[in-house]
Amino acid sequence: MSAIPENFLGKTAKINDASIQPFPNSKKIYISGSRADIKVPMREVTLNPTPIQNPDGTPGFEQNQPVLVYDTSGPYTDPQVCIDIRNGLSEVRAAWIEERGDTEVLHEQSSQFGRERARDAGLDYLRFNHYKNPRRAKAGCNVTQMHYARNGIITPEMEYIAIRENMRRDTLAEQISQQHPGQSFGASIPQHITPEFVRDEVARGRAIIPANINHAELEPMIIGRNFLVKINGNLGNSAVTSSIEEEVDKMTWGIRWGSDTIMDLSTGKNIHETREWIIRNSPVPIGTVPIYQALEKVDGKAEELTWEIVRDTLIEQAEQGVDYFTIHAGVLLRHIPLTARRMTGIVSRGGSIMAKWCLAHHKENFLYTHFEDICDIMKAYDVSFSLGDGLRPGSIADANDAAQFGELEALGELTKIAWKHDVQTMIEGPGHVPMHMIKENMDKQLSECGEAPFYTLGPLTTDIAPGYDHITSGIGAAMIGWYGTAMLCYVTPKEHLGLPNRDDVKEGIITYKIAAHAADLAKGHPGAQIRDNALSKARFEFRWDDQFNLGLDPDRAREYHDQTLPKEAHKVAHFCSMCGPNFCSMKITQDVREFAKQQNIQDVDTALEKGMQEKAEEFKKQGSEIYHKT
Amino acid sequence: MSAIPENFLGKTAKINDASIQPFPNSKKIYISGSRADIKVPMREVTLNPTPIQNPDGTPGFEQNQPVLVYDTSGPYTDPQVCIDIRNGLSEVRAAWIEERGDTEVLHEQSSQFGRERARDAGLDYLRFNHYKNPRRAKAGCNVTQMHYARNGIITPEMEYIAIRENMRRDTLAEQISQQHPGQSFGASIPQHITPEFVRDEVARGRAIIPANINHAELEPMIIGRNFLVKINGNLGNSAVTSSIEEEVDKMTWGIRWGSDTIMDLSTGKNIHETREWIIRNSPVPIGTVPIYQALEKVDGKAEELTWEIVRDTLIEQAEQGVDYFTIHAGVLLRHIPLTARRMTGIVSRGGSIMAKWCLAHHKENFLYTHFEDICDIMKAYDVSFSLGDGLRPGSIADANDAAQFGELEALGELTKIAWKHDVQTMIEGPGHVPMHMIKENMDKQLSECGEAPFYTLGPLTTDIAPGYDHITSGIGAAMIGWYGTAMLCYVTPKEHLGLPNRDDVKEGIITYKIAAHAADLAKGHPGAQIRDNALSKARFEFRWDDQFNLGLDPDRAREYHDQTLPKEAHKVAHFCSMCGPNFCSMKITQDVREFAKQQNIQDVDTALEKGMQEKAEEFKKQGSEIYHKT
Repeated sequence: MSAIPENFLGKTAKINDASIQPFPNSKKIYISGSRADIKVPMREVTLNPTPIQNPDGTPGFEQNQPVLVYDTSGPYTDPQVCIDIRNGLSEVRAAWIEERGDTEVLHEQSSQFGRERARDAGLDYLRFNHYKNPRRAKAGCNVTQMHYARNGIITPEMEYIAIRENMRRDTLAEQISQQHPGQSFGASIPQHITPEFVRDEVARGRAIIPANINHAELEPMIIGRNFLVKINGNLGNSAVTSSIEEEVDKMTWGIRWGSDTIMDLSTGKNIHETREWIIRNSPVPIGTVPIYQALEKVDGKAEELTWEIVRDTLIEQAEQGVDYFTIHAGVLLRHIPLTARRMTGIVSRGGSIMAKWCLAHHKENFLYTHFEDICDIMKAYDVSFSLGDGLRPGSIADANDAAQFGELEALGELTKIAWKHDVQTMIEGPGHVPMHMIKENMDKQLSECGEAPFYTLGPLTTDIAPGYDHITSGIGAAMIGWYGTAMLCYVTPKEHLGLPNRDDVKEGIITYKIAAHAADLAKGHPGAQIRDNALSKARFEFRWDDQFNLGLDPDRAREYHDQTLPKEAHKVAHFCSMCGPNFCSMKITQDVREFAKQQNIQDVDTALEKGMQEKAEEFKKQGSEIYHKT
Repeated sequence: MSAIPENFLGKTAKINDASIQPFPNSKKIYISGSRADIKVPMREVTLNPTPIQNPDGTPGFEQNQPVLVYDTSGPYTDPQVCIDIRNGLSEVRAAWIEERGDTEVLHEQSSQFGRERARDAGLDYLRFNHYKNPRRAKAGCNVTQMHYARNGIITPEMEYIAIRENMRRDTLAEQISQQHPGQSFGASIPQHITPEFVRDEVARGRAIIPANINHAELEPMIIGRNFLVKINGNLGNSAVTSSIEEEVDKMTWGIRWGSDTIMDLSTGKNIHETREWIIRNSPVPIGTVPIYQALEKVDGKAEELTWEIVRDTLIEQAEQGVDYFTIHAGVLLRHIPLTARRMTGIVSRGGSIMAKWCLAHHKENFLYTHFEDICDIMKAYDVSFSLGDGLRPGSIADANDAAQFGELEALGELTKIAWKHDVQTMIEGPGHVPMHMIKENMDKQLSECGEAPFYTLGPLTTDIAPGYDHITSGIGAAMIGWYGTAMLCYVTPKEHLGLPNRDDVKEGIITYKIAAHAADLAKGHPGAQIRDNALSKARFEFRWDDQFNLGLDPDRAREYHDQTLPKEAHKVAHFCSMCGPNFCSMKITQDVREFAKQQNIQDVDTALEKGMQEKAEEFKKQGSEIYHKT
């Protein structure tokens, strides 16, 4: 190339350093499964000890158990792993897929478009250089995790997931017991997740494991209401702005902060090549909306879309390793007039493309009429359906209307067809919904779609805060997660306004980690409260570093603290930076606890019986300012 | 003064320019009441017209009605008013208070501390220069709005509030009808707020009008579950950091963005003088926690507090014009041992101070034993109670425990005593509470406290996100607001970490405006959806400026948009900045609407009957890319 293109270059691509920093006081650990190649990553946060006073009056220490954190960041945060995004990640699933003996490696891509791109030397400079030939199910084979599950097979993926979801809960009985009972609205979350439970949930369609056979780099994860609530982060270039390099960077940045899956929503140029880079470097499932790329192939003219073009696109993407496809097959001709008097019409890009096609041809949506053909593709690669809500409401006014619920009913029918083919399926949901109308969405989804996992965008609980829609939607996301939604699609502060940059991506992810975790707590997910308890204990004991390190964003917590009290000494200070040294409720309450301890108060009755008169003077004499533990 | 102090100076003090900018495309309007001096401010946002196609094919316009916005910013955003914070605001209530004839102006302050500060020439440089002598009820008079209400008197304050809450709803029947029915959990929100309704709600204790007779600058507002949900923003210097200037600036900044009341939680030096500056310049009610200042008077030694010191402080602050006092009178001796085995003990500063006092003396909380004496002070100035939740949970683990609920029961008893004195009362609430345990708080508060307004801090729905606690708590705040909480106390991103700066204050306020508005929508507050509908219509019609201007933060919306599409021309672009010109669902859906319009589709049945075959070809011929309205 004579001129250096603005894009990311195949030969010089490198990881952003910020994405590979280990988290403070954390180490990556791996828990082994029944076979040597099942090694499930977690982050272990080491805590400082609590200073105490020994019975003989000398200062001592009480250890604090490290806290395990579910880790989506992949090998990037493992200092033992040498990261070179030009090579891609190592293929943790390769042997498992190979062993099953139901797939074969193709000599070349089955998709015409894929072959054309591969032959185009003009793209060499931005191509991922370790391209491998794709794998496909052998004729007559169905390679979905659902198919295995229904045949009673526990795959290594399922065992991996059981270990991952458990987070060593079997060794944490005491911590788990220190948790409020939840209200789960009929979820069936067991105390201990077994591989058999994972299999059973996948078999009955209540959970999915998005895991394309061409995405061997994937660290398996599960989406279902009886597991931890997951979040998705989006990335994607557009005709207007952004490059491949930025998109790969957003992926590694997004998973660092906790994105459980990533959707690549690119609509600009070089979509195919961008996707290759992303999948080869992604330890989390990648989802796409294939119709976006199909539309690019017909120069943005929806009415020129054909089943053949879409079919070729589905195969192209399935052979790259996309783990789930958003398919807008529920936007039916009869629904379209229902949107005409809406406040904001059709706001889903996929939905509006299909609506336009339907109108132009006055034919039923070809994704609907070809749905079983799509199932045949999905089961040859184990791509999961994310049945798109093309008619989701784009404003409070349009929430829960006939168009939206009509489509949801159609998605229920399609779910049954997908399940007939053993194709894993989740259902996308709204959108913009005021708080009191959120639960109706969850209830209807559960009943129409047979408990297939629900995957919602927010919902946004008001329209009046552009620039803050991560928050308007974080409220709705937390609530719908509590009610039973399995995965929450993030919204960034740029929603409705522009394309998110790195900061926006992080802000969106953290907001959604909050929503998902608040939902886990409310559902009473066993062990969910361990991290809250550990952080609050650290806060109460003025272990500032532990408080920061246990948070979702240690960097920001530390930075904010240091703005008020910048000195290192203050991080061991026994007062909060808000109130100053003589004015700290935490400090005062330590006295109360110490007092109660001295009194040997075991319960309220004893306390009242003993009165407290006798000790009051002593407390005063000791100097009630003393912090006895140090 | 020889050296220039770091503080704000009485002679040079000036307003921060950012606080007095009018909002874009907005003007301040005043709606008159039954008498000339009742002039209720609102912000009117003017909208651009919608381009349409006339029947003859020529381009035309359809007007969009301006939108009224509840306006807490006071005269600061009125370009007609000359702002000089050295003079304070004009006294809108002066005549109303005077006319009632039940108060008298004192020659000097009744508080000993106040008199000492007034005599101290060393404070002249930072003193507010237009100090007025305080006013107090004549002997035997009770000057609370509740007292008037119970005697059947509709005060100008009540009429003002009726106009303010109505937001001209009487002229907006059509807009109000375009709203979802809400779920209000037993609230009794009328379609139209009359002065009599305001009186009745105050009389029965279900709402309060915080309006000290010494705060004549106040623009009256109401806190109650049958009115719009309100929010409070905190400010306050501390021994560690910040100056008077910053605090006044935070007040004007906070009300600009929508804070309905401001609490001054200062704990550092010059508390008295800081407060004077704030009240004289505040159009919104000011709340304080008087025990904070009392503690400063005994050098931070809680055990040295006495009723006499607190009494003097209450009078000092009441005569300055503080509108509501947080009084931690429900922290009782018997509750204290209940906190000993908590995860985070006592986290309320006021609560911990009183607990420490109780322990040191082994006596019952003197705020409890002197509660009727406090009522006597409150009714002489019309200071409202905000009964403090000194034992609120500081962690998820401690939510809804015996200590918290024991105190809430005590607050219920105290409410009855306050009401016996016709003293207006609201109740403070938690804290940290997981989502599924929030409603229990609201239900218990309603039943224990006879529907006195609930005023909650968040609650935070998880502990694990220091740096993002505006969001962890915004979720809980929206929910508890929906359930019936009347006012939400904001939390900033610096919660648990440090003192908020201007940016943090704004972030906290906007987050809480979102929570309050989401709650209004969910309750079905009449007219609440007007702004959402107007903004969404603007969004759908690509009226970018209107979308920005109708948002809670027009500046940020515009800034975020411009980061992606900086050119002015793009603000009239008929595509979203996220997707680019050929890829916009909004644009496509316009076609659908146009199509339906051409079809004259009045309802679904007609649409299905007509089929759409005949028009499909025509639609294609016309060129389905055309945006017909321009």
